[in-house]
Amino acid sequence: MSNGAVPEPDPSKFTGADAVFLQDFATLCTFGATAGGGVERQAGSRADGEQRAWLAGILRDKGFDVSFDQVGNQFGLLELNPGAPYVLVGSHLDSQPTAGRYDGAYGVLAAAHAAFLLAAQWQADGTTPRYNLAVVNWFNEEGSRFKPSMMGSSVYTGKMAPENVLAITDAAGITVREALEATAALGEGTGPKAAYAAEIHIQQGRSMEQDGITIGVVDSNWAANKYQFEVRGEQSHTGSTVIADRHDALLGASMLVVAAREIADHFPGGAVHTSVGQLDVYPNSPVVVPSLVTLLLDLRSADEELLAEADRVLHDRIGQIEQAARVEISKTGSHCWPVTPYQPEGVALAEKTAANRGFTYTRVKTLAGHDSTNLKDMVPTVMLFVPSVEGISHNEHEYTTDQDIISGLHVLTDVVRSLCLGELDPR
Amino acid sequence: MSNGAVPEPDPSKFTGADAVFLQDFATLCTFGATAGGGVERQAGSRADGEQRAWLAGILRDKGFDVSFDQVGNQFGLLELNPGAPYVLVGSHLDSQPTAGRYDGAYGVLAAAHAAFLLAAQWQADGTTPRYNLAVVNWFNEEGSRFKPSMMGSSVYTGKMAPENVLAITDAAGITVREALEATAALGEGTGPKAAYAAEIHIQQGRSMEQDGITIGVVDSNWAANKYQFEVRGEQSHTGSTVIADRHDALLGASMLVVAAREIADHFPGGAVHTSVGQLDVYPNSPVVVPSLVTLLLDLRSADEELLAEADRVLHDRIGQIEQAARVEISKTGSHCWPVTPYQPEGVALAEKTAANRGFTYTRVKTLAGHDSTNLKDMVPTVMLFVPSVEGISHNEHEYTTDQDIISGLHVLTDVVRSLCLGELDPR
Repeated sequence: MSNGAVPEPDPSKFTGADAVFLQDFATLCTFGATAGGGVERQAGSRADGEQRAWLAGILRDKGFDVSFDQVGNQFGLLELNPGAPYVLVGSHLDSQPTAGRYDGAYGVLAAAHAAFLLAAQWQADGTTPRYNLAVVNWFNEEGSRFKPSMMGSSVYTGKMAPENVLAITDAAGITVREALEATAALGEGTGPKAAYAAEIHIQQGRSMEQDGITIGVVDSNWAANKYQFEVRGEQSHTGSTVIADRHDALLGASMLVVAAREIADHFPGGAVHTSVGQLDVYPNSPVVVPSLVTLLLDLRSADEELLAEADRVLHDRIGQIEQAARVEISKTGSHCWPVTPYQPEGVALAEKTAANRGFTYTRVKTLAGHDSTNLKDMVPTVMLFVPSVEGISHNEHEYTTDQDIISGLHVLTDVVRSLCLGELDPR
Repeated sequence: MSNGAVPEPDPSKFTGADAVFLQDFATLCTFGATAGGGVERQAGSRADGEQRAWLAGILRDKGFDVSFDQVGNQFGLLELNPGAPYVLVGSHLDSQPTAGRYDGAYGVLAAAHAAFLLAAQWQADGTTPRYNLAVVNWFNEEGSRFKPSMMGSSVYTGKMAPENVLAITDAAGITVREALEATAALGEGTGPKAAYAAEIHIQQGRSMEQDGITIGVVDSNWAANKYQFEVRGEQSHTGSTVIADRHDALLGASMLVVAAREIADHFPGGAVHTSVGQLDVYPNSPVVVPSLVTLLLDLRSADEELLAEADRVLHDRIGQIEQAARVEISKTGSHCWPVTPYQPEGVALAEKTAANRGFTYTRVKTLAGHDSTNLKDMVPTVMLFVPSVEGISHNEHEYTTDQDIISGLHVLTDVVRSLCLGELDPR
């Protein structure tokens, strides 16, 4: 476990645009700052609204036209070639509870600064790129307050209907629409037309740090099976009910949590990741055997055959747990995706760019979902990683060095330049 | 698992005071009635306030002086021998969420009707009993909304300080004081002085039903060790964090839930009961490995040596779980009580009374805590049980037959008569 505060961004060690970027990042870290050195700015919260207003300000200062679409995706548009489609570059500013500073936020700010630099260069040298520039802050990538995750990019790419998304409620019954209205982030329309997309993000794993790699080029995402389960038992008195008469939903759910870990341990080399992040107990009273537990269980792997095997083992175990705990377990929701590649021409562009800059680089897979995971299903998309110290993420101690985030910014800038100039266009 | 609605009380099969009792019980079942045939009227809720106002009405109609003490215990006093102390007879009207109709409520209404009958008899025949009559509705026996359980009787018997109790908050941050004020149930003072106490309750177990016993005479309570644990891990990403890097608080907590059941199974004959009724996860987000789980774990036994052995096994297992799940588990609260007897002279009185009425009876132990568990530490106390169909309790299907609750009412009436007449006074 990591201890101690995360170092502050230190612009004094850098010059020019790099120093300005770090200064802006230091400012961004103050929105929803937590005592533990992280941030908490869940989608549609006040802190989320404040950081969105701040982002709009720095974009407008550079001449970008800022707007929100019908589900709160925030766009900063710079039209350099009237009528041409856009290169979408961005990530998300929303965070998990007690989260780190880098997840998503780094990618949005790097997108803005890459765009600022390119705009200034092209204004100076008179270049008219083939595509226009859009800096994007996708709404609710995290899915902690409003489920599911990657909400804004799912609507943008046509995977979810906007009217359904706007009606989704948080635990307090507040709808997405209400949260967007309260933070002045509910706009109209479907956003700009995309030609390409790019995103940069921290790795959220430790392989790049361990291997001394500066730039990760994402070539595919892991497959995932995400399930919602309901475990049903019967309320009874925790003291007086004899054990043989109990139908304890929490016992069944706990056996399922333990089984999930055993499945991960069953596959060598960390080939399968499993987890239960959310679990709710009813009636959750000290002296009542719980009658209902709902939980979210994920299985992930880069190998679809292993994932299918893990899934079979899980479902076998569910039958055994139902018998052992005398409960009923039913699947009430699922969200599954296969291994899908990022476009090879985008991978090649990113590798060439990193090499030209003189950085170490390697191909990596993303275990986590990202907005780019959605975007790549619509347009050619480049996804870059920078290292995470100790692989810590979704944690206040999440950290990437200033040098690495600046290196990532430089590669992103070059990649976006190439995309805007049409280097990946079919010849 | 039991299915189908619980039969309604049917006064038409009874006559006189018994029919009136069942009619009143049918009315009482309407307060906080649930669609599933049970009730939900947690302490200090609106439904709790409504049923307390209704109880006050039927008590006042019979000439009882109704008041609340400093922590919302409700007393209906009938002074028959000016200046003499009181026989306290009652139970609690508050319920668990989605609870049964009988738990507590039966005992309060039986107390009121026993007192009505005795008052009428003594008025008719001119008897002045040695002690006065107090019908009591103890505040918050269940402890589901405000912890701990048996709150009102704990203050009355000097085990908890009233100022501490009034400051306790529910999950929404509402204090006991605020809930009592909102339901017009915050009074003054410490209630009447007690000479004896009596309570009748459903068994919440199936032994009496199985053995064909109508009246259970409680001779002692099981010992219990109730613990609050915190399981601490580290937030991380459920997808990208490799399994070996995880410190999953929910995994550790789940292993503890499973271990608790294994401990119960380890002792033959149901000699040890264990349970986890309440468990809360932080941050409880779909893609975050939980960093903190709090849970309440109980161990209970009629044999203090077995309980001590179970406790040692539990603490050994905690060390193993900390290693296996790489978490830290700490005990943040405990509430333990030994096996304590009800006064033998009260047990003998109850047995004699049941025999005189011609009912089958047996000595039983209470596995659950009751207000009488507190009262018996202050004054000689009689605790009676009637059977529970299938032993179901803290469940909407909790049921005791009309015949059994009427039989219990008759025995309670006779016991209270004896107590008021001083039959248990030292000679």
